[in-house]
Amino acid sequence: MPKKIDHAARKQDIAKATWKVIMDGGMEAASVRNIAKEANLSLGALRHYFTTQEELLYYAMELVKTRCEARIMQVIQQVLPPKQLVTKVLLELIPIDKETMAEMQVWFLFTLHFKYKQGDAFRQTDGIRETVQRLLVFLSDSGYLKEGKDLLKETEKLYALIDGLAFHRFIDSENFSGEYAAEILTEYVDDLCREEKRSN
Amino acid sequence: MPKKIDHAARKQDIAKATWKVIMDGGMEAASVRNIAKEANLSLGALRHYFTTQEELLYYAMELVKTRCEARIMQVIQQVLPPKQLVTKVLLELIPIDKETMAEMQVWFLFTLHFKYKQGDAFRQTDGIRETVQRLLVFLSDSGYLKEGKDLLKETEKLYALIDGLAFHRFIDSENFSGEYAAEILTEYVDDLCREEKRSN
Repeated sequence: MPKKIDHAARKQDIAKATWKVIMDGGMEAASVRNIAKEANLSLGALRHYFTTQEELLYYAMELVKTRCEARIMQVIQQVLPPKQLVTKVLLELIPIDKETMAEMQVWFLFTLHFKYKQGDAFRQTDGIRETVQRLLVFLSDSGYLKEGKDLLKETEKLYALIDGLAFHRFIDSENFSGEYAAEILTEYVDDLCREEKRSN
Repeated sequence: MPKKIDHAARKQDIAKATWKVIMDGGMEAASVRNIAKEANLSLGALRHYFTTQEELLYYAMELVKTRCEARIMQVIQQVLPPKQLVTKVLLELIPIDKETMAEMQVWFLFTLHFKYKQGDAFRQTDGIRETVQRLLVFLSDSGYLKEGKDLLKETEKLYALIDGLAFHRFIDSENFSGEYAAEILTEYVDDLCREEKRSN
């Protein structure tokens, strides 16, 4: 069904044009008109893919998540010892290079936008807390996590660390490099783990 | 000089009206007209205090910082053992109650606003990284920090943790309570410290 594939590809192109518009001019710039222009489409053609601005913005936000999840799936398929695997997955959650920086910037702006549109009804749907929790359970089950750790609290700490590192990359990308952020996060995971796997 | 005091107090009232407008409608709502209305002032009267919108927004942002610094100064003047003192200061940096939640929300939005206005020239001026670093040096000098810690990296971790906790309070205030955030942060500082002060 080539037509369906074209349709999906075109939607992704429009979403990427949306990211570009938002990165250049902030959320205020994200009018349907500006996005159509960036995507080289007429307003009518764009409306063929997205009926409303909110629908388009929501799709563009979800695409960030989809791409991040796809990267994580690639990591998970690698054969790696548990600690290295967990570290590699977590590193996908902070912006290291230009591409992931762009994704994170639009993600922050989308989050704030929908938070204000929806107020208390807003629920962050990036799934990072759940991913972090699952990784810590995996470290614990495979005998690598230090003993005496409360998994729920460790989840909150690591989840906060990740979003904090991401935020600092965003507001101070020149001084706070991706490599340094990665080093900090790797060291943090090292500290959570035992020197040797626990024998059962 | 009562006139000067009135002038300063009025500027603070306008800044608080600005916060209110931003909390209700986001940064897009922060027009001089809306702020004047919220502050019960004519546009002309408001211009007496702030010539431009950017000047007003900048002042309103700096007031968040000033108030947070004033709270920290109050904590520092208390006679407390080093670990408790450090924990108490750090707790002032995350939003626990309604008032500090409001301050943090406008701080996030201001940060994004100025980041987009100024691009790479933007420098975050909240001084939290410096405060965190000073507190860790204090813990180390007074013999409470665990040995073998790299102060610069520990600063980045704790700084990221704080902004991450603050961000999660913001996007998920119903499920992630101020008390729980405080508990997480307190436990984190506990983990950084030795059981007993190091004897010199």
